Amino acid sequence: MRATLLYGAGDVRVENVPDPVLKHSTDALVRITASCVCGSDVWPYGSMNPGDGPARMGHEFIGVVEDTGSEVTTVHKGDLVVAPFAISDNTCEFCRAGLHTSCSHPQAGFWDGEPDEGGQAEAIRVPLADGTLVKLPVAADSALIPSLLTLSDVLGTGYHAAVAGGVDERTRVTVIGDGAVGLLAVLSAKRLGAEQIILMGRHQARTDLGREFGATDVVSARGDEGIAQVRELTAGHGTHVVLEAVGNMPAYQQAVGILRPGGVISRVGVPQYEEAPIGFGSLFRHNLRLAGGPAPVRAYIEELMPAILDGTIEPGKVFDVTTNLDGVAAGYQDMADRTSLKVLINP
Amino acid sequence: MRATLLYGAGDVRVENVPDPVLKHSTDALVRITASCVCGSDVWPYGSMNPGDGPARMGHEFIGVVEDTGSEVTTVHKGDLVVAPFAISDNTCEFCRAGLHTSCSHPQAGFWDGEPDEGGQAEAIRVPLADGTLVKLPVAADSALIPSLLTLSDVLGTGYHAAVAGGVDERTRVTVIGDGAVGLLAVLSAKRLGAEQIILMGRHQARTDLGREFGATDVVSARGDEGIAQVRELTAGHGTHVVLEAVGNMPAYQQAVGILRPGGVISRVGVPQYEEAPIGFGSLFRHNLRLAGGPAPVRAYIEELMPAILDGTIEPGKVFDVTTNLDGVAAGYQDMADRTSLKVLINP
Repeated sequence: MRATLLYGAGDVRVENVPDPVLKHSTDALVRITASCVCGSDVWPYGSMNPGDGPARMGHEFIGVVEDTGSEVTTVHKGDLVVAPFAISDNTCEFCRAGLHTSCSHPQAGFWDGEPDEGGQAEAIRVPLADGTLVKLPVAADSALIPSLLTLSDVLGTGYHAAVAGGVDERTRVTVIGDGAVGLLAVLSAKRLGAEQIILMGRHQARTDLGREFGATDVVSARGDEGIAQVRELTAGHGTHVVLEAVGNMPAYQQAVGILRPGGVISRVGVPQYEEAPIGFGSLFRHNLRLAGGPAPVRAYIEELMPAILDGTIEPGKVFDVTTNLDGVAAGYQDMADRTSLKVLINP
Repeated sequence: MRATLLYGAGDVRVENVPDPVLKHSTDALVRITASCVCGSDVWPYGSMNPGDGPARMGHEFIGVVEDTGSEVTTVHKGDLVVAPFAISDNTCEFCRAGLHTSCSHPQAGFWDGEPDEGGQAEAIRVPLADGTLVKLPVAADSALIPSLLTLSDVLGTGYHAAVAGGVDERTRVTVIGDGAVGLLAVLSAKRLGAEQIILMGRHQARTDLGREFGATDVVSARGDEGIAQVRELTAGHGTHVVLEAVGNMPAYQQAVGILRPGGVISRVGVPQYEEAPIGFGSLFRHNLRLAGGPAPVRAYIEELMPAILDGTIEPGKVFDVTTNLDGVAAGYQDMADRTSLKVLINP
């Protein structure tokens, strides 16, 4: 079958690889019908050392179950399913607490930790299929597929940012980042009733979509000027919550600058730094808090799917390009250049 | 009157200074009857540059109101009162939200920011007296004075750690630090019903008091060995909450190491660092959270005082030495040497 491999920075190739096969009695084989490129794929695309490659790519997909191991009971051949970006058993104490990205099962983990599998491909072996896969009540060619595909990562990640940040109807929120996760963090804050949602981003097509998703204000300035504008919009105090959907140090510093005393920075952009200021002069003085991490999107699928099925939310609007595997390399480059917001792949 | 001044590292002097006078119509003058030395006083005692001194010291006190400005209505001449370590109006939106240490009044702030006032003295001018002072329903020579004095800082700070960490009856807690704040964090976690309370400390007299306050386990090892022992006590997973009552980098690193996925580090020890690891390899991977800051102890006084008055809790047990102003310099040294846990001053 054909699959996407990253050989190094700027070097994406689609190649023939061995077809996946069942390895464990808890596996399922899935023929992929829809996949996509993630903002987090763009980090290694920009920086990966060729010595670290090639790596199989993709961790968001919908597909049809082709075969299952003997212990799999919740999905069957022919079912259309969606998979979160993390493999989990959905039964351990962490999964039961809604923290599937810390599942304690030995086979649990991120797709990126599965060297022979990836979602930007024609098929995939899914470990812990009962825990990981969720059946979709539509056909593979449904018009809802783009929105349902966001359940695999970006919608659940934006929603996790808002949930981990404690957003409710008494909350003023700033969202940093107008990528797909940032825009769906806006949608999520709106869904949770936030009183004010300030979107910080500078690409008008994206911030326009952010307004459609619920942003009440847009600030295109960054750094000190951006901080000043957010403070101006919030009686000088900043917002109760900042949803940080970028992951670099300038975004973190901006978050600290626009947070209200006692507020919380909820991070879902994978940090591209390890050390950061958290002492008296940054977080401590005003009881600023820090939350977030890899989203346990599996925990949110059942909660969010009905709103997609009944048309209440249309998170699939974040896909502005659709291609097939032949167009994946160009899709990476377009996302790196920010000419595409998010690329949908029909293998 | 006599007051305590810090001239530089290791150089505490008690000197004659001008008597305090009312400056604003919202001030009160208080004759101090009980005060103490704080763990946070020991940091500058260990490191202050003589060029930065002399500084008036002390931010925890009980005293008798001697005079009030014309606008003061809640306390009167002759009242015995306790003051929190932060001055606040108790009416702004941050105070109403229980975050008195971020009070927006221009005269609000820490005692350490009042150059001509300090609690380790015979008298003090209290700004925003209505917001800052709380009347005590006992006499100045009551046996409850040591416990009531902890309402000014260490009890409220330990309690804030536990509240900000979200401690409840489903929580396993580790407390790092066997100083007065750490021990009262233990007492607070117990009061909030924590299922398990592991105290990390190596001074047996202190950890014995910690057990009396509610610690279920004591770990004297530090660093990797300490982390391993806490994990052993918690089925390998670590605790849901770490109350960090020290403030240095080894304590922070230890906190990260013993935290359960999804858990929270609640810091109340003033950080002696600004940058620290918070990226994928430390906090982010397992959705570890960070909370805490200067405790809004004013918010907790009414809640905690009844338990002191009826003898349910005896936080005053953290005082192991009582002295007068002549003994303050020795008290600083004893606390720095850790031969005293906390020094009470009857001026």
